[in-house]
Amino acid sequence: MEPADLGLGDSSLHRYLDGEFWSLKNELRGLLGGCPLFRPRYDLSLDEMRTLTFQRVTFTMGLPLLKRAIQDQVEKTRNFVSRSLVIGEVLSMADMATGVKCGIIYWLFGGAIRSLGGPAHVTQWLQPLQEQKYTGMFAMTERGHGSNVRVIQTEATFDFSAQEFVIDTPCKNAEKMYIGNAMYGNYAAVFAQLIINGRSQGPHCFIVPVRDENGSLYPGVTVVDMMHKEGLHGVDNGILRFDSVRIPRENLLDKFGSVGPDGQYHSPIKDKSARFNAMLAALTPSRLAVTFQAMGSMKLGLTIAIRYSHSRRQFGPKAREEVKIIEHQTQTLRLMPHLATALALTFASRYAGTLLDEDIFRGKELVDSRPLQALVAGLKAYSTWENVSCLQDCRECTGGMGYMMENQISGLKCDTDVFVTFEGDNVVMLQVVVRELLAQYTKQCEERPVSSLLRNWVESGSDRLRTSFLAFNMDTVGHLTFLLKAVHFRERILQRGLVARIYYKVMTEKEDFFSAWNSCLHHITCLSLAHIHRVTLEQFCLAVRNCPDQEDQDLLKQRLAPKRYLLHLCNSVKDDALRVISAFNISHASLHAPIAGFANPNAAWVLYPAPQHSLAGERARSPRPKLGAKL
Amino acid sequence: MEPADLGLGDSSLHRYLDGEFWSLKNELRGLLGGCPLFRPRYDLSLDEMRTLTFQRVTFTMGLPLLKRAIQDQVEKTRNFVSRSLVIGEVLSMADMATGVKCGIIYWLFGGAIRSLGGPAHVTQWLQPLQEQKYTGMFAMTERGHGSNVRVIQTEATFDFSAQEFVIDTPCKNAEKMYIGNAMYGNYAAVFAQLIINGRSQGPHCFIVPVRDENGSLYPGVTVVDMMHKEGLHGVDNGILRFDSVRIPRENLLDKFGSVGPDGQYHSPIKDKSARFNAMLAALTPSRLAVTFQAMGSMKLGLTIAIRYSHSRRQFGPKAREEVKIIEHQTQTLRLMPHLATALALTFASRYAGTLLDEDIFRGKELVDSRPLQALVAGLKAYSTWENVSCLQDCRECTGGMGYMMENQISGLKCDTDVFVTFEGDNVVMLQVVVRELLAQYTKQCEERPVSSLLRNWVESGSDRLRTSFLAFNMDTVGHLTFLLKAVHFRERILQRGLVARIYYKVMTEKEDFFSAWNSCLHHITCLSLAHIHRVTLEQFCLAVRNCPDQEDQDLLKQRLAPKRYLLHLCNSVKDDALRVISAFNISHASLHAPIAGFANPNAAWVLYPAPQHSLAGERARSPRPKLGAKL
Ligand SMILES: Cc1cc2nc3c(=O)[nH]c(=O)nc-3n(C[C@H](O)[C@H](O)[C@H](O)COP(=O)(O)OP(=O)(O)OC[C@H]3O[C@@H](n4cnc5c(N)ncnc54)[C@H](O)[C@@H]3O)c2cc1C
Ligand SMILES: Cc1cc2nc3c(=O)[nH]c(=O)nc-3n(C[C@H](O)[C@H](O)[C@H](O)COP(=O)(O)OP(=O)(O)OC[C@H]3O[C@@H](n4cnc5c(N)ncnc54)[C@H](O)[C@@H]3O)c2cc1C
Repeated sequence: MEPADLGLGDSSLHRYLDGEFWSLKNELRGLLGGCPLFRPRYDLSLDEMRTLTFQRVTFTMGLPLLKRAIQDQVEKTRNFVSRSLVIGEVLSMADMATGVKCGIIYWLFGGAIRSLGGPAHVTQWLQPLQEQKYTGMFAMTERGHGSNVRVIQTEATFDFSAQEFVIDTPCKNAEKMYIGNAMYGNYAAVFAQLIINGRSQGPHCFIVPVRDENGSLYPGVTVVDMMHKEGLHGVDNGILRFDSVRIPRENLLDKFGSVGPDGQYHSPIKDKSARFNAMLAALTPSRLAVTFQAMGSMKLGLTIAIRYSHSRRQFGPKAREEVKIIEHQTQTLRLMPHLATALALTFASRYAGTLLDEDIFRGKELVDSRPLQALVAGLKAYSTWENVSCLQDCRECTGGMGYMMENQISGLKCDTDVFVTFEGDNVVMLQVVVRELLAQYTKQCEERPVSSLLRNWVESGSDRLRTSFLAFNMDTVGHLTFLLKAVHFRERILQRGLVARIYYKVMTEKEDFFSAWNSCLHHITCLSLAHIHRVTLEQFCLAVRNCPDQEDQDLLKQRLAPKRYLLHLCNSVKDDALRVISAFNISHASLHAPIAGFANPNAAWVLYPAPQHSLAGERARSPRPKLGAKL
Repeated sequence: MEPADLGLGDSSLHRYLDGEFWSLKNELRGLLGGCPLFRPRYDLSLDEMRTLTFQRVTFTMGLPLLKRAIQDQVEKTRNFVSRSLVIGEVLSMADMATGVKCGIIYWLFGGAIRSLGGPAHVTQWLQPLQEQKYTGMFAMTERGHGSNVRVIQTEATFDFSAQEFVIDTPCKNAEKMYIGNAMYGNYAAVFAQLIINGRSQGPHCFIVPVRDENGSLYPGVTVVDMMHKEGLHGVDNGILRFDSVRIPRENLLDKFGSVGPDGQYHSPIKDKSARFNAMLAALTPSRLAVTFQAMGSMKLGLTIAIRYSHSRRQFGPKAREEVKIIEHQTQTLRLMPHLATALALTFASRYAGTLLDEDIFRGKELVDSRPLQALVAGLKAYSTWENVSCLQDCRECTGGMGYMMENQISGLKCDTDVFVTFEGDNVVMLQVVVRELLAQYTKQCEERPVSSLLRNWVESGSDRLRTSFLAFNMDTVGHLTFLLKAVHFRERILQRGLVARIYYKVMTEKEDFFSAWNSCLHHITCLSLAHIHRVTLEQFCLAVRNCPDQEDQDLLKQRLAPKRYLLHLCNSVKDDALRVISAFNISHASLHAPIAGFANPNAAWVLYPAPQHSLAGERARSPRPKLGAKL
């Protein structure tokens, strides 16, 4: 479809928000927008929905643009991560279940092969994904172990004489659970304890055939359908059980641990636990993909809620003079901060993507980029929680209309709710962040104990001055630099407090580490969120400073509101909000909520007028409070 | 079914939490628990789900216990409101859509007749509901007006010669929208502008026949199916349009305004706006019913999440020694406060029900009980928001399992999400509360300006002393009296601040009231919530103090935790939590979540062991922090 028909734009702001790969995004929007398969359906049974999703996935993975993306992953072409991330974002906005299923195939199955396998595996298993000869799944979680996957119980026992691994599910708790694409997929990347001569080398990943091309299960494999979920009805999740399933020795993805024909185990990493960490780290990009999907969902929800709020009228100074609901202070106050967060996350997650690309391009193992892993873990938790709360507010702010499926918001809510859980439970992710922060802290102190302590002291000294009551006048508080310092300060205070508490508990009180850590969990989650807020804010500030167009910059700058001005600012930005959401550049094919002013043939009953939003109106800005922000 | 088979108890705590009507509740639990219609189904199409819900509703309304409830409403038997409220709570826990549909028939349609009609209407329309000769709907909302129903546009024009009203939908915005039971119901209680001789007397309620007993629409009536929603799939919502539908003069529910055969309009309330207020006030009980349904939903969700948290293990000091997830500090911290809220709301909403019953029994018009209306509005907003946040935490705290429909939580979430919107949007409800608080304040000041100002001053003086740094030692803060004072103080400060701001804006700055009010909306919602928190806390304290059994009292007292002790307390109450949820007395027929340890034949794959929870274990209490609360 033509960009114009889909309502796509390419103004400077559109391009800045879409980022470097804006034209790739537009291309995909055009391709999906023209495909009738993506028309929304709410009337299908579970089976029908899965069949439709299968067709959508097949169509999508068949696009040359997607084949190219797989080839890029094969070749580790420069920036392939960032490009795949934006593809995932656009796709999720067309249909979340399709986005998730493609993610399973591309990021989880494909990503496991690329990052845990050797070149031969890539040629054998990843490359052919382009031709859709088969599809894959990713089988890590077990009934007994979701967050704590280190102790999964599936076994891969090496049979020397046959030169094969025997995959087994020794007990009920070892069943692979929730596995996406379990009802369709042909191969699974299965994590199992690698056992040689009765001794486990820890979890490794194996390619296990599950179904032949006709869809018949191979002997020894059992699959149970997990059926109905809150959302993502198009994604088929199931349970996998293995009963002496034999696979060739070569099916071990052996980058971090291999078994020779002689049955000897080799690994570049001696420590079992460190080895598994390296594997998990290599899977980091797929975690960031969830953040991009969550952002897509926030942008969609906000676009619908803000457009409706600019057209729906209710109450007013006189009975017949009702105001647009966006004029009610609470309405603005509920929606504008989410819009700011969506923008901030756009830049922070893009930044993380760039870092990942750099590392991978330079051949650096991700396990050696611990701060980056922590960043991605933190962004995953922050963005998916923000998405839940954003969509909830969008739902509520659109009144009864928001509860109707045709208006998209509640469907999105159900589909994305699980984001806080899968790809790493958020509470566990926050602990990953803090573990890294503490490691950094300890390292700093060890390397240059005196100077670093001194620096910390000096820094906190100056912070204290600025936050003292004396310095607390409006101008200073209004400064963005002050805000940045404040979030920095909060993070440091929390960090130092935590270190002191854990140190005291472990060293002085002789508590075991597990219980000391556990009794600080609340502190830990606060620190973790403080950290990720700070990083996100910094990236947002940088992005605003680097924005090439002055007018766009002004528009973005307003979203950087210190809390003090919140009421005032929310009010002043609400009109410009229409311009910002339009620069999200969402294809009209993905926006079919009648309340946002888009005709939906399935729900003619509910069409609302589009918000009045002429270009002239767009430019006529409302007066802004002087922020005096120094960027 | 026998109580024992359903896991029902009648210990002192069970009875105290169930309240005065515990045996009624148990009776209904038994009746519903024995009915195979209530087995959970997730595999049905929209039509099938609606048909099943229709059968469930028919079964339920056919129970002698429910017939009796209708007769009680007819006769305004003492305490009929409280009894119906608990019936609604139990029913919603069996199936939320059934609860909501029965609510439409009993509270909304039936309630409109009882409270807006005269004795003849009650005999003609309410009484026959017992025999299920027909079912009703409640048609107030229009496409153009949801929250601002005062300006609905449906017209009821009096035709003198025919002695009839002519019901018309003059424009698209006047269409009745979201009307529950629209696809099945026979009669609708329709709100329309009453027009005599071309002049409107404001909105009144009319009984309009929609379908005959065979389900055929009457001429002039059009119904459009609104189809798919986030939840409540069993509830059929639709759009109603009227084209010159003629109804007899007697179909006007004429308690607050009647039209004589001579075409003369009479009303005990002269002011049009005050008249409509009286009608809305009369409908207050149905709003409180939503709070009871929200509580039912919270109790169910918490029971499932807490039981699972006491059986699921993940992570631990050593690989093979995993702890129950309830042992993770964050898990307790996320669940225990909701449990406390559910308990507090139990008593606060019971209190509101008692007040309603007293007023109705004494024949007092509810419009004259403005504080009570405000209380109910506030409880509706507070409880439904708490429910959303509670279920979200329950969903997240049960990990991937919480996302599976069989485990009930996500279905409950979708079903009850709309509670924040219907029966009065929560943001609008909060404004109802504050309007009343300000009216009280003004009245107080007018009646005894000097003394009341003086009292305020004295009170704030002593408050200030207590919250000053000097008095801020642990003991004082730990006192419950301190907590109560603190929430009181917060409320008063917010109230005085608001009065001053509005006064300044309107009197000094000459702003119009609408915009002055609107620019304080954030302040208003804070005050409103502060008020309702205070009332809820007070009721909870009272309930604890009045608890007849010492051991039960101790158990409840712990839930009254000042924030300061939160971490500590959450930890110490988590074991007793199993006892508290078991005293929620939820029928095992309503609890079919396998993760809570209940076998579910539809999802054998997901059975988890029940938490170990022997009576001995129950009694062995964990040591408690000294709260020193003075109750
Ligand atoms: C499933 C379902 C069942 C229903 N069943 C029935 C039924 O049987 N009978 C019936 O008559 N109705 C029914 N309703 C309608 C329901 O009562 C309305 O949806 C509700 O009153 C809200 O109105 P609205 O949807 O028009 O939202 P609006 O009033 O348009 O509100 C939209 C947004 O504007 C905000 N807003 C509006 N006014 C203000 C203000 N003054 N200050 C601040 N913010 C404001 C709201 O907070 C909300 O965020 C049902 C609705 C649903 C979804
Ligand atoms: C729709 C869906 C699709 C999925 N797809 C796949 C897939 O394709 N492949 C795959 O391998 N897996 C998949 N999963 C599994 C998913 O990754 C797990 O659900 C997730 O890792 C969480 O594990 P769990 O459900 O066992 O929860 P648990 O780990 O049991 O967590 C339960 C609760 O305990 C808390 N908790 C656990 N540990 C701690 C701790 N240390 N500190 C504090 N709190 C803690 C959690 O916060 C949570 O509240 C999917 C899940 C779902 C729901």
